[in-house]
Amino acid sequence: VKMGAFAAVCVVFFTLLISGISRATYQPTWESIDSRPLPEWYDQAKFGIFIHWGVFSVPSFGSEWFWWYWQKEKRQEYVHFMQSNYPPDFQYQDFAQQFTAEFFNAKEWTDIFASSGAKYIVLTTKHHEGFTLWGSKNSWNWNAVDVGPKRDLVDEVATALRENGSLRLGLYHSLFEWFNPLFEQDAANKFTTNYFPTTKTLPELYDLVMKYKPEVLWSDGDGNAPDKYWNSTAFLAWLYNDSPVRDTVVTNDRWGQDCICKHGGYYTCTDRYQPGHLLKHKWENCMTIDSKSWGYRRNAPLSDYLTIEQLVATLVETVSCGGNLLMNIGPTHDGRISPIFEERLRQMGQWLKVNGEAIYNTSAWRVQSETTKMWYTARPQEKTVFAILLDWPDKGWVILNEPVATQGSTKVELLGYGSLQWEPAMASGLNITLPPLSFRQMPCQWAWTLKLTGAS
Amino acid sequence: VKMGAFAAVCVVFFTLLISGISRATYQPTWESIDSRPLPEWYDQAKFGIFIHWGVFSVPSFGSEWFWWYWQKEKRQEYVHFMQSNYPPDFQYQDFAQQFTAEFFNAKEWTDIFASSGAKYIVLTTKHHEGFTLWGSKNSWNWNAVDVGPKRDLVDEVATALRENGSLRLGLYHSLFEWFNPLFEQDAANKFTTNYFPTTKTLPELYDLVMKYKPEVLWSDGDGNAPDKYWNSTAFLAWLYNDSPVRDTVVTNDRWGQDCICKHGGYYTCTDRYQPGHLLKHKWENCMTIDSKSWGYRRNAPLSDYLTIEQLVATLVETVSCGGNLLMNIGPTHDGRISPIFEERLRQMGQWLKVNGEAIYNTSAWRVQSETTKMWYTARPQEKTVFAILLDWPDKGWVILNEPVATQGSTKVELLGYGSLQWEPAMASGLNITLPPLSFRQMPCQWAWTLKLTGAS
Amino acid sequence: VKMGAFAAVCVVFFTLLISGISRATYQPTWESIDSRPLPEWYDQAKFGIFIHWGVFSVPSFGSEWFWWYWQKEKRQEYVHFMQSNYPPDFQYQDFAQQFTAEFFNAKEWTDIFASSGAKYIVLTTKHHEGFTLWGSKNSWNWNAVDVGPKRDLVDEVATALRENGSLRLGLYHSLFEWFNPLFEQDAANKFTTNYFPTTKTLPELYDLVMKYKPEVLWSDGDGNAPDKYWNSTAFLAWLYNDSPVRDTVVTNDRWGQDCICKHGGYYTCTDRYQPGHLLKHKWENCMTIDSKSWGYRRNAPLSDYLTIEQLVATLVETVSCGGNLLMNIGPTHDGRISPIFEERLRQMGQWLKVNGEAIYNTSAWRVQSETTKMWYTARPQEKTVFAILLDWPDKGWVILNEPVATQGSTKVELLGYGSLQWEPAMASGLNITLPPLSFRQMPCQWAWTLKLTGAS
Amino acid sequence: VKMGAFAAVCVVFFTLLISGISRATYQPTWESIDSRPLPEWYDQAKFGIFIHWGVFSVPSFGSEWFWWYWQKEKRQEYVHFMQSNYPPDFQYQDFAQQFTAEFFNAKEWTDIFASSGAKYIVLTTKHHEGFTLWGSKNSWNWNAVDVGPKRDLVDEVATALRENGSLRLGLYHSLFEWFNPLFEQDAANKFTTNYFPTTKTLPELYDLVMKYKPEVLWSDGDGNAPDKYWNSTAFLAWLYNDSPVRDTVVTNDRWGQDCICKHGGYYTCTDRYQPGHLLKHKWENCMTIDSKSWGYRRNAPLSDYLTIEQLVATLVETVSCGGNLLMNIGPTHDGRISPIFEERLRQMGQWLKVNGEAIYNTSAWRVQSETTKMWYTARPQEKTVFAILLDWPDKGWVILNEPVATQGSTKVELLGYGSLQWEPAMASGLNITLPPLSFRQMPCQWAWTLKLTGAS
Repeated sequence: VKMGAFAAVCVVFFTLLISGISRATYQPTWESIDSRPLPEWYDQAKFGIFIHWGVFSVPSFGSEWFWWYWQKEKRQEYVHFMQSNYPPDFQYQDFAQQFTAEFFNAKEWTDIFASSGAKYIVLTTKHHEGFTLWGSKNSWNWNAVDVGPKRDLVDEVATALRENGSLRLGLYHSLFEWFNPLFEQDAANKFTTNYFPTTKTLPELYDLVMKYKPEVLWSDGDGNAPDKYWNSTAFLAWLYNDSPVRDTVVTNDRWGQDCICKHGGYYTCTDRYQPGHLLKHKWENCMTIDSKSWGYRRNAPLSDYLTIEQLVATLVETVSCGGNLLMNIGPTHDGRISPIFEERLRQMGQWLKVNGEAIYNTSAWRVQSETTKMWYTARPQEKTVFAILLDWPDKGWVILNEPVATQGSTKVELLGYGSLQWEPAMASGLNITLPPLSFRQMPCQWAWTLKLTGAS
Repeated sequence: VKMGAFAAVCVVFFTLLISGISRATYQPTWESIDSRPLPEWYDQAKFGIFIHWGVFSVPSFGSEWFWWYWQKEKRQEYVHFMQSNYPPDFQYQDFAQQFTAEFFNAKEWTDIFASSGAKYIVLTTKHHEGFTLWGSKNSWNWNAVDVGPKRDLVDEVATALRENGSLRLGLYHSLFEWFNPLFEQDAANKFTTNYFPTTKTLPELYDLVMKYKPEVLWSDGDGNAPDKYWNSTAFLAWLYNDSPVRDTVVTNDRWGQDCICKHGGYYTCTDRYQPGHLLKHKWENCMTIDSKSWGYRRNAPLSDYLTIEQLVATLVETVSCGGNLLMNIGPTHDGRISPIFEERLRQMGQWLKVNGEAIYNTSAWRVQSETTKMWYTARPQEKTVFAILLDWPDKGWVILNEPVATQGSTKVELLGYGSLQWEPAMASGLNITLPPLSFRQMPCQWAWTLKLTGAS
Repeated sequence: VKMGAFAAVCVVFFTLLISGISRATYQPTWESIDSRPLPEWYDQAKFGIFIHWGVFSVPSFGSEWFWWYWQKEKRQEYVHFMQSNYPPDFQYQDFAQQFTAEFFNAKEWTDIFASSGAKYIVLTTKHHEGFTLWGSKNSWNWNAVDVGPKRDLVDEVATALRENGSLRLGLYHSLFEWFNPLFEQDAANKFTTNYFPTTKTLPELYDLVMKYKPEVLWSDGDGNAPDKYWNSTAFLAWLYNDSPVRDTVVTNDRWGQDCICKHGGYYTCTDRYQPGHLLKHKWENCMTIDSKSWGYRRNAPLSDYLTIEQLVATLVETVSCGGNLLMNIGPTHDGRISPIFEERLRQMGQWLKVNGEAIYNTSAWRVQSETTKMWYTARPQEKTVFAILLDWPDKGWVILNEPVATQGSTKVELLGYGSLQWEPAMASGLNITLPPLSFRQMPCQWAWTLKLTGAS
Repeated sequence: VKMGAFAAVCVVFFTLLISGISRATYQPTWESIDSRPLPEWYDQAKFGIFIHWGVFSVPSFGSEWFWWYWQKEKRQEYVHFMQSNYPPDFQYQDFAQQFTAEFFNAKEWTDIFASSGAKYIVLTTKHHEGFTLWGSKNSWNWNAVDVGPKRDLVDEVATALRENGSLRLGLYHSLFEWFNPLFEQDAANKFTTNYFPTTKTLPELYDLVMKYKPEVLWSDGDGNAPDKYWNSTAFLAWLYNDSPVRDTVVTNDRWGQDCICKHGGYYTCTDRYQPGHLLKHKWENCMTIDSKSWGYRRNAPLSDYLTIEQLVATLVETVSCGGNLLMNIGPTHDGRISPIFEERLRQMGQWLKVNGEAIYNTSAWRVQSETTKMWYTARPQEKTVFAILLDWPDKGWVILNEPVATQGSTKVELLGYGSLQWEPAMASGLNITLPPLSFRQMPCQWAWTLKLTGAS
């Protein structure tokens, strides 16, 4: 009882304090928070890389939800894995010592990220396990500086990114922690107390923003608690009004139960969200190259990795429908990006080198697609429409019914190749003649872009 | 700045809360706290066992201050030990995993403790390293339930002790923690903030008392911070007024800078405190069987262990001067009390079986000693004076000058043997004839008690 | 002195024993051994997979020569790696405990091998480190059954291979061991003693053959000792005369100093041997997908892995010049074939599915190539010549000058597609018209085969 | 079959070789071997220290037979201990890595040994586990130089002993090894083959003697194989005729099934052999301070350690009956002699400092004892008889019936004190008056010696 009352006082105090000092453009209400325009860079960037790294990268078995599945759900395969390979009283916490990161080189990572054509990254600074990848004072002995790597991994990534200059920094942060006893206590109290956000979540969120100045703050893990419990609107008001990144920072929609797909910054809705049609609100499709896990899985066969064809198709559809793509990789416990991930990322970069014009800085067009194998994007100011073909037509020509073209002023180009001939199609639109390119002459693989200038 | 203000509010709130609810016999002032009479059992008990156990028991090298000497003072022998035996980035925290306690059996420990004649024990629930031997919610992943033993060691000891019934439970608790970043932050702020006591020290102190109901609360480690910072008087007022052990609990004097030897419960003054004369205030001599360390040291040769003769002499002198003796052992990382400690403890018990009458429930006498080899204790209500001889006189008789004896009514007895003859000594006191006992006939070894009934 | 004499007697005895019992088709002389015809299956198979797995897979750093480079040559990067990551007295032998193989599944491996189109595999049963992947009695406590995996890895691979049925088993075995003290002693005696071959090498070779019945015995590591020291000819005589695999077993040429490229079975000459022209004697090009190591290297970036284009080209050139290709992968310490290796292997299989006709069961043709981008193979009995193009000609036709073709009877086919038109080329040979295939219509990627029937 | 024949040849060859070169004082027959007189020093020494140290010191649980009890007999407590504390596939061999010996200091050990009054030590160079404490070439990767301590422990002990100068070196060596596959193979062949002695036991025995020049060679572990299998008589003939220690070396009787208590050097008969009467042949009582184990047991309570009274009594009875006492300690995995062992050893030394005259260089007397609490030894040349009393008589005198004394010439002395009065006893012998010594005046504790000069 005592502590509950105490906490209540603290929350009030905190709120007053923050609102009192703030420049107060935004109020700590969803109405106000939601009214903030999305900083432009984000919609222009289109493509980011998600990085799930943590203590779960040590067992690197099954999923980054290893701890929960093993200890809480007691899933058979996890229980069996532990029984077969570890001493009987081995705990998840004991994995931290083996999170060694000896091969981790943030510059090498950044080179790979940059080669992929991505414009931002989002790094898990703390997943639901609660282990912080930076030296948080509020997470003593359960952070990467005190145990495991003995390095501030967030700082190393942030620094290398800034030196490289071509990518923006995003930080993932989980509000709740599966097994944090203070969270469990609050939950047992039905979130009428808030020891946990007061002493852990909020201090760490402020610390993250002040120290690393992220331009994406990717919130996750509401733990079935309402945003009032997390004090999310007060925090976001501070972030938007007073933080050092107030002008450029972007956030998502995972700030409390019932916020998702409704409040905050851009929408993420569900993992691997792919609506297939245009959304009014800016959104992001976060998905994984390893189709079954966000964290690294040693036991993933090649067939679990999406092919480069699938990945390019996902990017194309996502951007066409107004979303950004956040494509996930899981580094290893010793700090490597495995070659299969590196290959996929570099292939994305090869494709974007030729086709980036149809992705970056584009808008969704009035029509998204005519078939699931062809998607539109556009640059309205430039009167340009892009049709991205996921299959190369065998027949030597392709018909686009939706674009309105004018003979004489509308020009068609195959990106990476050059101008193409076209004529009005029977019903509507254009019938474009494709050149008879041999295997080696193709400007790229996996998908091809027709750029229509002077079309609408 | 924000957090400082916040913390100030919280302290005020806390204080009000506690004082408001409390039955308020004692006020949160030293004057009031110091006015509480010492619960009787403690002065009667005389002899307790101190147990230093923690992560430091894993390296078990040098001292329980291993972490500090190695990482902060960088003492050569510690640095060398680590360089010679561990990987280069091995941290103190990594030792926790090896704190296995697989042989720990609280019942066996309790049997040994009981056999020693001790009446209470004091267990380190948390030393300056901050690792808690119980599953503290405020010390997530840095406690014995989450890592290392994966058992609640405090609970096991407390339970076994209660089942045994002959010993009282005491808990040692360090206020500060060498490397806790929140404490470091407060210290950097010259203790004008108190994030650390608010979120760590005080919640844990309350938790310890509520859960384990200790009858000794042995505070230590003020970290050069004043008692105001620790909010000690408020806590003690609660402990004395409202806690479940308010009637019997005893505390010591280590509750903040400048408290030691001045305020609180009994005085400890310095480690291994042995004034050599009677003190007005109840005091305790805490000392170690391994003369060089409180924690277990693998590299301690036999010559570093005090002999049983030294230990008995220390007990005798301490009790004679009004103190209690708290004799320390250091269990091993795997939960054993090494045989050399067990031997010393059992020998103490053998001696006390014969001579306990001169120790337990006694008072200091008006004179403490005539030579450093003979010490007095007394039971005034029973008109009994005890003279404890650390050497057996070769000459067949011994003169005690200080006691006032009356022929006819004063009787002299050798404990464990029987009545002795005496006659008035030349100057004053008694000349007591010792029996010509052969080696095998001696009632005990190491020290011998002459009980004078009807003397004063 | 004594032991030397003893050993000499033993060698004589051994030799007599073996020759006395044997059916004696082959004598223990190189002349006789070299006269044995190569079992047919081997030349028909063309493509095998080499697997380097052992304790070196645990550090998986630098090379499978880790032990030697670190401890003998004291190369800076190895010394530094150990100093940075391991305790000061950590020895190579200590890695064995971490050779866990918990994800090793021989059936899964075999499926991958089979999917690659390979016809045999060669597994390192013992590399120069001396650690045996089977439970050798002569390698107590330094084998995979006693320590590390605690499984007979050779047996598991052999069994899975036999169940699959499409691949033959080959076993790699190193004659010498870098640091075996008995070998060192013999070496110090300039190989006038042979404690080592007598008690280790020879018993293990016999054991391997008797237990696992390999059809390739891939010898390596003469340790600069002559074949007389190893008693190689006697062993090979037994292998060819009396062993259970005498009819089908194939061996290579690494049976002692000065044997390589001269004596034994097929020639390997040097690692990654690629003469570029036809050899008279059957040979094998053993090479690695990771261009810098045979054993798994955690620190290999994508750029160190050969591309599928490079791998297909290597196969084509090797087979064209009369060799077999033995393409190496390095599994991980926990028993996985990493996805990048799996991808390369499966890609090889995709290519061979279309083009296998031009590889398996072919012979070298009278001409190997006209340019480095086009190589010939042939099936003389079928009057068929294959021209394999590493580049797809942009110009729509290709000229082959070397084949002698006859209009009417000579037919040309693109494998995976169908018949092509051709006409006599200006100077000599054929001018073949290639079809205008779109990207999706190509029968395969990376290289294309023109099959000439009725040509010579 | 082949190998069996080969082995037979080798045995013959070995035997011939040795006998041919040797100076041939002793033949390889028991008759000849048994005829060798025992080097004098051994009978004079009386007291040695046995040291059991090996990989079994790592689990230090149950017994040095840990491996056998766990894996072969599958005793419940061992199986349970492993299941509770180790990963499921942890093998005994994996313990070797934790045999660290970081606190091992041979000089400190030697100081403790010397302080005990012992005149020789016997160190287990290889117990039945087969792990050699020196860098044996025939035990690659299963010896203390290659794994675990990475030091030649035998060499360090031997060197420190020689520098000290007061103790002789003895080496324990087990003929068989529980799980050595070559021994198992020979055993399966009912010892008709001898791969194991030929390649392991005999080379190592020669190596030990040549390298470390032990003066006791303490053989053990015949593995139920006859001495013919071990080729023991040939080895002993070499040891006695040609080895560098041929003049002073002493061996025991454990050289093959049916040898024990019959052939070889002195007799050991059974462990903890204590016949209680005089034996004609020189013998040794090897026993343990920890009553239940030779190797260190972490889980040994104080009550399992023999008291100093029991140890002194054992020495006295053993020497009185013509034996030597070999008292065992078990050092820890990290190289320490635990304080309880150190205490017992130093106490032995205290006693021997006073009473050594009655032990060293004595002979058994014509009578061994009159009661179990009093034992005789003698120095016939000096016409001296020693009566050692295990209890101090309360009554002030003691009667010795067996010695023949002459008033005037027979003198009685209490060692450490001085002359005593005596008179002829009623029946026969002497009635000796003991002085009324106070506790502090006693010359020693635990047992007291009456020296009778001029008695017979």
